[in-house]
Amino acid sequence: MDGGAREGTSGRAFWDPAWGAEYLDDFKALSSFGATAGGGVDRQAATPEEAATRTWFAAWLEDRGFTIAYDRIGNLFGMKETVRGAPYILVGSHLDSQPLAGRFDGAYGVLGGAHAAHRAGLALGGQEPRFNLAVVAWFNEEGSRFKPSMMGSSVYTGTIPLEVALATTDRHGVTVRDALALTQQVGDDDVLALDRIAGYVEMHVEQGPDMEANGIVIGPVVGTWCAYKYEVCVTGAQSHSGSTPMADRRDALLAASHLVVELNGLIDEFETEELHTAVGELNVLPNSPVVIAREVRLLMDIRARDTATLRRAFASLEQRITAIEARTHCTIEIISKSTWESGTFPEGGVQLTAQLADELGHTNASTVTLAGHDATNMNEKVPTVLFFVPSVDGLSHAEGELTSDEDMVAGLSLMTNVLHRLAGEGIPTVY
Amino acid sequence: MDGGAREGTSGRAFWDPAWGAEYLDDFKALSSFGATAGGGVDRQAATPEEAATRTWFAAWLEDRGFTIAYDRIGNLFGMKETVRGAPYILVGSHLDSQPLAGRFDGAYGVLGGAHAAHRAGLALGGQEPRFNLAVVAWFNEEGSRFKPSMMGSSVYTGTIPLEVALATTDRHGVTVRDALALTQQVGDDDVLALDRIAGYVEMHVEQGPDMEANGIVIGPVVGTWCAYKYEVCVTGAQSHSGSTPMADRRDALLAASHLVVELNGLIDEFETEELHTAVGELNVLPNSPVVIAREVRLLMDIRARDTATLRRAFASLEQRITAIEARTHCTIEIISKSTWESGTFPEGGVQLTAQLADELGHTNASTVTLAGHDATNMNEKVPTVLFFVPSVDGLSHAEGELTSDEDMVAGLSLMTNVLHRLAGEGIPTVY
Repeated sequence: MDGGAREGTSGRAFWDPAWGAEYLDDFKALSSFGATAGGGVDRQAATPEEAATRTWFAAWLEDRGFTIAYDRIGNLFGMKETVRGAPYILVGSHLDSQPLAGRFDGAYGVLGGAHAAHRAGLALGGQEPRFNLAVVAWFNEEGSRFKPSMMGSSVYTGTIPLEVALATTDRHGVTVRDALALTQQVGDDDVLALDRIAGYVEMHVEQGPDMEANGIVIGPVVGTWCAYKYEVCVTGAQSHSGSTPMADRRDALLAASHLVVELNGLIDEFETEELHTAVGELNVLPNSPVVIAREVRLLMDIRARDTATLRRAFASLEQRITAIEARTHCTIEIISKSTWESGTFPEGGVQLTAQLADELGHTNASTVTLAGHDATNMNEKVPTVLFFVPSVDGLSHAEGELTSDEDMVAGLSLMTNVLHRLAGEGIPTVY
Repeated sequence: MDGGAREGTSGRAFWDPAWGAEYLDDFKALSSFGATAGGGVDRQAATPEEAATRTWFAAWLEDRGFTIAYDRIGNLFGMKETVRGAPYILVGSHLDSQPLAGRFDGAYGVLGGAHAAHRAGLALGGQEPRFNLAVVAWFNEEGSRFKPSMMGSSVYTGTIPLEVALATTDRHGVTVRDALALTQQVGDDDVLALDRIAGYVEMHVEQGPDMEANGIVIGPVVGTWCAYKYEVCVTGAQSHSGSTPMADRRDALLAASHLVVELNGLIDEFETEELHTAVGELNVLPNSPVVIAREVRLLMDIRARDTATLRRAFASLEQRITAIEARTHCTIEIISKSTWESGTFPEGGVQLTAQLADELGHTNASTVTLAGHDATNMNEKVPTVLFFVPSVDGLSHAEGELTSDEDMVAGLSLMTNVLHRLAGEGIPTVY
């Protein structure tokens, strides 16, 4: 072990401040890829910006003795097989971003996970760890270029067939297969199949305001909100937007606008912040100044803590949709639906995270996640730990996204100890 | 003169049915350019499809003795100087279309105008006409690729500076200048300056249902509705559409949707069909599934018969906008405005059109235009005649746009006689 670090013994968390400084330097370097004028990043999946980020990150891992490989959906793995044939504890997140997004979302968990795995591995050097350590940067977590989000971990866990994912196109008709081939960051086998994974750990920025508001530095995640996501097709009839009598119009954009307003109006039927709804993407056809839209496609997002709330919201929405159809003479059709149900993370992992945070002196309180994460996918298959660090003003998916250096390093010190404990001692009772 | 045509004498309209059959063959050929699977055309300004259409049409004119030239904004002129130095009667419309549009809008008036000028010119052969005849296909009437609409005639009449028009970009950043240069359908002088034009004549499909509903074949246009067009920027704040608390959101798409709904709601404050409102184009930034939109840009279109109605509607809209801003914490800003005021067409031209329609046996009744036309621009500068033929179900800016062969030929026979009368006799009392 380096410098002034405390011993990595059971019940005694260790940390060297020099490791934090080194991490912050690397994070600055990482943030230069796809950097935007507004202080954020723009590196959507399989773009040159994201590919450059992954190339840099793969070199970082190789420099520290990790073996690099890409699986068939472009997930990047860095593996260190210390104990021959032993299962792996996997740590990671994603390096892709939304358009004009923040530097922290995903990237924090990938680089922080890699630093932590590196330090935890070194700290385990004199011991006989039970598990190996591996780092993953999941492909296309954001889903902004290729839908749906969390594509890499969904293929990995078998939720989405590989061929379906590879055939998905962006709005210019480019397939995932072709985009990945261009980056050369894709392989032809599974690399590290799910049955070789003993546990998954991810840290992430909160993307909400609660932890900062309550002075919490570490938030072990106990549960995830459920989310229903609908792709909707609103069909009207194309006509002249000046000369067509108002009574004869079947304006798909008017119907879609009513839908956006009504979806938002749903929240008034529930307790404050009990239900979240949004439309983030909406595309108009033909989208010309003097033409009534014949079609609008949009994505509706409805989230709540429990499925019963979502079902109640959706039942109300269906009534509202029927009224919009009658009023606008358009049809509103749900053409696809993707959901994730509410879930809980293993209690033992939450307890371990809280205990190690306490040992390190980091204020902590358990929390829930409203956003989806690759950890949500992994949690359905293997014991999974997820914890948050605060987001200033709760801002995310925006250039102004911010987590303080102190909070980033706090999370890193915790992750280092979580990996050290899991890989070194196995702690089967955690799960 | 050909075949069985009646004499082209004053007070006695002439027509040969064979000319109609020939026209219909040519119209079928013209409609093959940019033809769509749905029976329409898609040939937006300065695209390869529109350029091919113009190339075909220019050859058609040359074959019939017209001299071809493009002016500096890409308006295509076909001129026949029968009387050296005499002013011209100009006839035409436009060959560009909206995306997935009909075959008739614009193309009918260009090809029909050319056929009419050709036949009227031949009929004038033995006489001493007062004016020459010229045909024009105006550049970019539709405004779908390059805004605003009616660009070619606006530059021609001096409403838009040439340099401003040439610097206008499409959504991919291509300028009008570069797009025209690629087609090679642009010249370096004025070709036929406005002061050489004695009068302008245009025929067009109605794009509304009234003529068909009332059994009218020819509609001399007596007036034009006024229109206010606004480019609007709605500004919110980008954030995560799942995890951001509802109370913290500044959702530009939600605000824009309220605006679309409120703009439509304006019509309830007026008599039925007294006010037309629409949003045809709306673009969301960043337009990603899991991101609250930071900005929406949209185009509002408000039309009425008189300016007082439009002003009253806009005043109400301003109040509604203030309420939307307060409710959504977004700002809604009008960043540009283009208008055309209501106007009337010269009474003498309306009377001549009706008289010749009577002589030809075409049921006719004067009408107004809700849509803008190049004739609206020309009417501000030179004596202008505009008349309509019916649109089946009033449908336009859509692939299903339809005008019957009989009605097209009826308009063509009338246009032939209008041009013959105007060029041959001058009829100064018309205006």
